[in-house]
Amino acid sequence: MAKVRVEASKSYDIIISAGLLQSAGEHIKNTVGGTKAAIITDDIVDKLYARTLETTLIDAGYEVFKFVIPNGEGSKNTENFLAILDFLAENGFTRKDAAVALGGGVVGDLAGFTAASYMRGMRLVQVPTTLLAAVDSSVGGKTGIDLRAGKNLAGTFYQPDLVLCDYLTLSTLKEDVFRSGCAEVIKYGVISDTSLFESLREPIESRLEEIITRCVEIKRDIVAADEREGGLRQILNFGHTFGHAIELLSDYRTPHGEAVAIGMAMMARACARLAICGTSTAESIIDMIRHYGLPTETAFSVEDIYKAALSDKKMGGGVITLVVPIEIGRCELRKTSLEELWEFIELGLKT
Amino acid sequence: MAKVRVEASKSYDIIISAGLLQSAGEHIKNTVGGTKAAIITDDIVDKLYARTLETTLIDAGYEVFKFVIPNGEGSKNTENFLAILDFLAENGFTRKDAAVALGGGVVGDLAGFTAASYMRGMRLVQVPTTLLAAVDSSVGGKTGIDLRAGKNLAGTFYQPDLVLCDYLTLSTLKEDVFRSGCAEVIKYGVISDTSLFESLREPIESRLEEIITRCVEIKRDIVAADEREGGLRQILNFGHTFGHAIELLSDYRTPHGEAVAIGMAMMARACARLAICGTSTAESIIDMIRHYGLPTETAFSVEDIYKAALSDKKMGGGVITLVVPIEIGRCELRKTSLEELWEFIELGLKT
Repeated sequence: MAKVRVEASKSYDIIISAGLLQSAGEHIKNTVGGTKAAIITDDIVDKLYARTLETTLIDAGYEVFKFVIPNGEGSKNTENFLAILDFLAENGFTRKDAAVALGGGVVGDLAGFTAASYMRGMRLVQVPTTLLAAVDSSVGGKTGIDLRAGKNLAGTFYQPDLVLCDYLTLSTLKEDVFRSGCAEVIKYGVISDTSLFESLREPIESRLEEIITRCVEIKRDIVAADEREGGLRQILNFGHTFGHAIELLSDYRTPHGEAVAIGMAMMARACARLAICGTSTAESIIDMIRHYGLPTETAFSVEDIYKAALSDKKMGGGVITLVVPIEIGRCELRKTSLEELWEFIELGLKT
Repeated sequence: MAKVRVEASKSYDIIISAGLLQSAGEHIKNTVGGTKAAIITDDIVDKLYARTLETTLIDAGYEVFKFVIPNGEGSKNTENFLAILDFLAENGFTRKDAAVALGGGVVGDLAGFTAASYMRGMRLVQVPTTLLAAVDSSVGGKTGIDLRAGKNLAGTFYQPDLVLCDYLTLSTLKEDVFRSGCAEVIKYGVISDTSLFESLREPIESRLEEIITRCVEIKRDIVAADEREGGLRQILNFGHTFGHAIELLSDYRTPHGEAVAIGMAMMARACARLAICGTSTAESIIDMIRHYGLPTETAFSVEDIYKAALSDKKMGGGVITLVVPIEIGRCELRKTSLEELWEFIELGLKT
């Protein structure tokens, strides 16, 4: 069992342990309190793990309610946001009761924004069941839903009260979903930890506790320094500017992790060509992405990606901030003009 | 001109001045920045002041957009919340652009929650045009909308970047709307400032700058000590537990200020009878409420008010926290059982 303490605007523990789901109720009762618990999950995770979670919550003394959304990005919408708010109100939840997000990033983002908004903030527990959610979206307090105009356009910064990561739940992930999470793990190596990066040449399935803990510590340190994403936190977006553009262009058929993998590869190639990083650094990044069976190329054009990237919400005043690798373990923020952005994309796509 | 500096999770200024609306653009540009401004207002305020605000924003270099809702509590709904989010997205707003809430409490609460949620928080300027909004709802970061199940059930804590209070706008208020704001002014006197309270025996119309400044300072100090309403901040709810119940029972036909006035009078009577405060304290409170032409009685029954109060979101675990007057200028929080709550209501209604 590993425990990572996060000190943000709210302080909380991330507990990473095999079989943790079975004792989740006790952890939640001791840390979060309240008398009611709302399990928010998707239909796939529901069948696998909701019963176990429900049982342990009941054993801990909670009155348990459950709200199930269809699996997939399409569920991160305004309708579900409002429906969960009504569900909480109709079942008499107070601020002191717990919303328990059981699932991947979609469930975590949606449940997080709902918990943040219900009565101006109720208790929130994240129980990630995907590698991506475990290392990324359940930590750091970003919540959100999609609007018609784009992904994650509504949301808030809201820290959970507790994160329980039972990595045995990752064993039931479909291979491509697991692989998608590996892209984020690679990202942590590139932005901040050479030895983590090097260790990824060995299989990670047998040492998930160590890997997840390290990733979460990296994110914790970055988020603690810049909770509301004024500056440094943007480092976490390595590979994401082009990744988000590719997701958007694919109408979200390209999974987040695969899109980020392509985005990281593009950035590696462009930075090598612009002598921002050495050729060997770029090759290491691209090799590692391939090592995990993740894509490094896309058929979308420079123009498509440029336009999609410009619709990204981080852009302001004709300047876009890119995260560029300097060497493995160190990235920097670089403000680029629209002309330079085009050049990055062009050089990034050229293989 | 008076300026009150608020140091909360975000620090910001409240500027209180006659004719401030005409130079609002410059203040907003200097403090908040951004290139686009969204005026969010209601149809009554739109006709009176939107043009002036729009002109000064354009002069300051903003591209200005406007979203108008119908006047009244009914507009504080999920449909408008989502419509404003879409409106911001469709017009290409970024986090660094400004939402400007021009109006009373409804506009401020709705625009505040929208600004808090758009891209996880955009810049927000409150421009209150009612006495109630000036002394209460534009300060302290509470935002919210109503759900089917109840008032203010969704929302968040989100501090504005700037509050501009041009109290000349209060001169166009209908008399009953102005009077309704006076109830909150009286509240500030009772909870924390004997000399403010005493001064209210003299007319306030000619010294609004002083009165608003004092109220805002009181709220600022309370909110600074307890931004997320863990304890002390509840003092601001004096008169509000029964007030909210009366609003709910009247289907929101009783204005907020009038309901709060009745709630304060009920609490004064009950506390005198329970020897929590002296009879003269209770009489002073009730006399002052009457002095402003505000009601002190209601026709709703003990049972109606009891049930409506129990649906209040601040209740948890069979205990309700009431704010009781000890003497003018000093109130305390008192946790009461459901039996005691009934007694408070019963004694409060008896005249």
